Amino acid sequence: MTERDGAGTIDTTALRELLDGRWAAVRGQARKLLRGPEFAPVYGLGVDEHRTRVSGQLRALAGTRLSGHGFSSDHGGSGDVGASVVAFEMLVCDLSLMVKVGVQWGLFGGAVQALGTERHHAAYLRDVMSVELPGCFAMTETGHGSDVQRLRTTATFDPETDEFVVHTPDEAARKDYIGNAARDGRMAVVFAQLVTGGERHGVHALMVPLRDASGRPMPGVRIEDCGPKAGLNGVDNGRLWFDRVRVPRTSLLNRYGDVDAEGRYSSPIENANRRFFTMLGTLIRGRISVAGGAGTATKAALAIAVRYGEARHQFDRPGGGGEVPLLDYLTHQRRLLPALAKSYALHFAQEELVSRLHESVTGGPLDDRGQRELEARAAGLKAVATWHATHTIQTCREACGGAGYLSENRLPQLKADTDVFTTFEGDNTVLLQLVAKGLLTNYRQEFGSLDTLGTARFVAGQFFEAVIERTAARSLIERLVNAAPGRDEDANLFDRGWQCKLLEDREEHVLEGLARRLRKPGADAFSMFNDAQDHVLLAGRAHVERIALEAFVAGVERVSDEGTRAVLNRLCDLYALSVIEADRAWFLEHERLTPARSKAITTAVNALCGRLRPHALDLVGAFGLNDEWLAAPIALGAEAARQEPRSRAQAPR
Amino acid sequence: MTERDGAGTIDTTALRELLDGRWAAVRGQARKLLRGPEFAPVYGLGVDEHRTRVSGQLRALAGTRLSGHGFSSDHGGSGDVGASVVAFEMLVCDLSLMVKVGVQWGLFGGAVQALGTERHHAAYLRDVMSVELPGCFAMTETGHGSDVQRLRTTATFDPETDEFVVHTPDEAARKDYIGNAARDGRMAVVFAQLVTGGERHGVHALMVPLRDASGRPMPGVRIEDCGPKAGLNGVDNGRLWFDRVRVPRTSLLNRYGDVDAEGRYSSPIENANRRFFTMLGTLIRGRISVAGGAGTATKAALAIAVRYGEARHQFDRPGGGGEVPLLDYLTHQRRLLPALAKSYALHFAQEELVSRLHESVTGGPLDDRGQRELEARAAGLKAVATWHATHTIQTCREACGGAGYLSENRLPQLKADTDVFTTFEGDNTVLLQLVAKGLLTNYRQEFGSLDTLGTARFVAGQFFEAVIERTAARSLIERLVNAAPGRDEDANLFDRGWQCKLLEDREEHVLEGLARRLRKPGADAFSMFNDAQDHVLLAGRAHVERIALEAFVAGVERVSDEGTRAVLNRLCDLYALSVIEADRAWFLEHERLTPARSKAITTAVNALCGRLRPHALDLVGAFGLNDEWLAAPIALGAEAARQEPRSRAQAPR
Repeated sequence: MTERDGAGTIDTTALRELLDGRWAAVRGQARKLLRGPEFAPVYGLGVDEHRTRVSGQLRALAGTRLSGHGFSSDHGGSGDVGASVVAFEMLVCDLSLMVKVGVQWGLFGGAVQALGTERHHAAYLRDVMSVELPGCFAMTETGHGSDVQRLRTTATFDPETDEFVVHTPDEAARKDYIGNAARDGRMAVVFAQLVTGGERHGVHALMVPLRDASGRPMPGVRIEDCGPKAGLNGVDNGRLWFDRVRVPRTSLLNRYGDVDAEGRYSSPIENANRRFFTMLGTLIRGRISVAGGAGTATKAALAIAVRYGEARHQFDRPGGGGEVPLLDYLTHQRRLLPALAKSYALHFAQEELVSRLHESVTGGPLDDRGQRELEARAAGLKAVATWHATHTIQTCREACGGAGYLSENRLPQLKADTDVFTTFEGDNTVLLQLVAKGLLTNYRQEFGSLDTLGTARFVAGQFFEAVIERTAARSLIERLVNAAPGRDEDANLFDRGWQCKLLEDREEHVLEGLARRLRKPGADAFSMFNDAQDHVLLAGRAHVERIALEAFVAGVERVSDEGTRAVLNRLCDLYALSVIEADRAWFLEHERLTPARSKAITTAVNALCGRLRPHALDLVGAFGLNDEWLAAPIALGAEAARQEPRSRAQAPR
Repeated sequence: MTERDGAGTIDTTALRELLDGRWAAVRGQARKLLRGPEFAPVYGLGVDEHRTRVSGQLRALAGTRLSGHGFSSDHGGSGDVGASVVAFEMLVCDLSLMVKVGVQWGLFGGAVQALGTERHHAAYLRDVMSVELPGCFAMTETGHGSDVQRLRTTATFDPETDEFVVHTPDEAARKDYIGNAARDGRMAVVFAQLVTGGERHGVHALMVPLRDASGRPMPGVRIEDCGPKAGLNGVDNGRLWFDRVRVPRTSLLNRYGDVDAEGRYSSPIENANRRFFTMLGTLIRGRISVAGGAGTATKAALAIAVRYGEARHQFDRPGGGGEVPLLDYLTHQRRLLPALAKSYALHFAQEELVSRLHESVTGGPLDDRGQRELEARAAGLKAVATWHATHTIQTCREACGGAGYLSENRLPQLKADTDVFTTFEGDNTVLLQLVAKGLLTNYRQEFGSLDTLGTARFVAGQFFEAVIERTAARSLIERLVNAAPGRDEDANLFDRGWQCKLLEDREEHVLEGLARRLRKPGADAFSMFNDAQDHVLLAGRAHVERIALEAFVAGVERVSDEGTRAVLNRLCDLYALSVIEADRAWFLEHERLTPARSKAITTAVNALCGRLRPHALDLVGAFGLNDEWLAAPIALGAEAARQEPRSRAQAPR
């Protein structure tokens, strides 16, 4: 439904194209491919049945173009990294399939591609793509998840036999939560402490066979099922123990570290710490994919809740006019529409991030700072997007009442499946700290020698050029910011430059304060960092919220249809002002907002909700999610039909 | 583990006794009774298997004292309403059992008890208690959940046969989400529009047989399974349609409305609206029980997460000292400890509410205002406690990382099972509006005739006496508030009087503003109310947060052990200050806090987290939840064992 209210009229095709973006073709493929009973969402399956179904789906996709995007064209792939991330995020018909694909082609295959060399590529990649070789990414251990550097599994070189001995020394070192391990995996990329000649060289990855052709565990390999989980029960997560398992020396994925037949270790990267982080850095695709997948699941939930909120009526309108659609209630708008605006912001930010990742692979290696920025952004967006998913899907469930609790309406599965997204591929709390650390490194490189507050303030004008990564929209944003009124109180709340300036200013202030705080002498290192931990998280979040706003602004810039742009501009206002509203205590504490202006922001958010409400159906429609992926009867006409005794029934489109 | 840090030392027995409170004996019974394999938490069961298990558990409890608390002693019950609510909340071993018990003895049996008369009590109550007669509470319809007054099922009197004809006129009128309906229920209390002689008398309840002795649906009754749900799959929710089903006239639960053989309607309550709300009012026990059940589930999640946070170590302490327990991290404390403080506050508020409910039943009917206050408090606590559960259990899951996602560690089930608590027994958003409406009614009765702002301000000094219900701790609170410094800036943040005054002041200001706002002439009724909806919700929340603080203060007052009291006082500080911190934007906007003081509150919350951290294990231990109810291996030594390679391993007690 498209109504006119002065905010504009959405051209639904134009908006869909904008959101489909650079990899529109991949989205189109997925929409065509993921149809019919084979890919329809399911619920209520037993664990075994669900795993069988998802394994079958994975194999069915192996014959399609979706399988090869992440792999080099020399070995049958298309070498289109961006496409691989976008393909992953489209697998919303069953998030178990999404994660299964992510394990096989993203983590397992991706590690072979990124950490291996030609001999591994030639030996494995075709079988990875065809799923002839189902594989695992065996990094996490029971005792060490976030702290990968402290993994305890060992891979000790034995020059006598020219083999590595892979070993699990204790219970804390068992591999845990490993996707594809409990049922399907034949081989694993195992991360272990590399030891040769008694010397340790840090964490490296090796190809280790798990099961023989008949599916029996290889000698020395013990496998256990992790059992039922909150969600994602179509993925067979398991635990692995290695009892002095021997693999040939060539099993080492040796792009960043090699051992010769005499047991001599060599690496193109001298510094062990740097080597470790370089290896990890090649694996950020998984993190970026998770942010995208969380985004699609959130969109699906919003599409269901908005359609239901439009069809469902409850309580008579005082003064007559029949029962009121839920979406007419301010509280209902408040629950769904700012979340919808944030989904748009994160969508544009994700698109920009995927493009950057793609360039970084196809355009040659980034410099240190570029790599650091890419990693910080991947970490930050992953954390913010997955928390947004957890929060928003929960809200959508509640907004659909009892109907939202029924499995048939998909929200329970979306919630349960995405729940672990905040944990895997990096715990969100740890990731936001990585963001802040990346920013602090830039900051110190620029201002490290300037020790007094005065000097730092003097150069603060160059803060954004010096410290903060350049975004695609940087010049546009600068123009907007410079055009904003000098005195904040004069600015219109809807002035985009003022909004951007406010978020920039917060980021700068928080980061400067943090840099000063962590430079203080005296306190012991742990206390100093720990006491500032909430400050650190704020720095990470402030950064992501600012870049998401800038990405949104740049996205709106790309629409030529005027009506659509007008609506998106209101939606961008809603994102900016609801972000500011949520943290208005900070802006008040730091006297960036007066009390009166702070209240005015809440009033403005309410007003924006009212103005955008008529466009809500179009805005979720533009996500382009197949109806059969939404699956929920309440989103596909059942609720409207039930409301038919009243003449006002509206069918969702 | 009990450490001393100057805050005090907890006497764990004294604390347990304090929390066990007035119905300690019931808690003790439950701890003894709910043991062994029959009542152990389970996961991964199929829907049928789970339903069978829970039905069996229900029957097993039927022989115990737990079944009769809610029923009058004339018919074999113990007539101890408070005990019935406390018994319900102890059923945390499986929340499906909790809800199944709630349906059978709380909703179904409770409706017979409260809405029926002697003939119904004599005919049914014994069989309700023994589960000879499994029953349903068939109120909600697909088309009307929150708006009970608009239910569409009809019960039309036919004087020819002296029967009521119960009928489902359309799809919107089918009964939905009805517990016990899909499998076990033999009879239902059906809520329907009563019609006699062509005249409608509003919603009334009737006893309608659903299935015959062999379990087949009765003629004219259609039953459908709601199918799998996000959680609570041990409860057989279903849908019911009635096709002109005839029941004897005496099936009407006729305490508040009766029809004689000639079809003449009579009621002890003249006004139809008032009659409806009186009938609903008798059913608030379910709402209060849900708040309690949500509380226990939250406590279980906190117990698991705190034990894990103590046992789990990650990342080396900078400067040496081995790996850091998660609970040493500020962010981890921030996630768990304010939630723990709030659980204590809500526990004390719940205890007070249950006592009031109990008095209202055993001590004779309340006056209008007393009943309104009881209902407002039940609605408010239910909303706040169930949202607290949703939020906190989610946080606990995340705080346990990948381990928290495994079903074996219980958090997934606790999350999924409690998810619908925010919806059933009254949607939380609707309930908070009820709270505000109750307060506004008191307000209008006192100040309704005073139309100008000035007059209202003049009497504002009597606001709390006049408008706000008296809590048990009222005189204590008044003393504290009066002793607080006159100028806010002079007050210590830890001054209890200042904290109470701040929350009182917010409640008063929000309510006064709302009363003025809703009195404005001009706007159409819907817009006026709808535009203020966020203000209405704030009024409800501010009220509940204030009464929870007062209940906490009164609770601390009851401990005689000094060390325990000292720790609880710090925990009460943490509750008060984290509530203030969460809404500090409001206090800044309304100039109740200066920016500097607002920042100081955040600093104080951080400091309190650090001081309470050594007591966290004791504080969750005092909830007195059997280890076998927690069930999670990570909370019962597995994590500590895994950490053994480090010498610092600590076993939870």
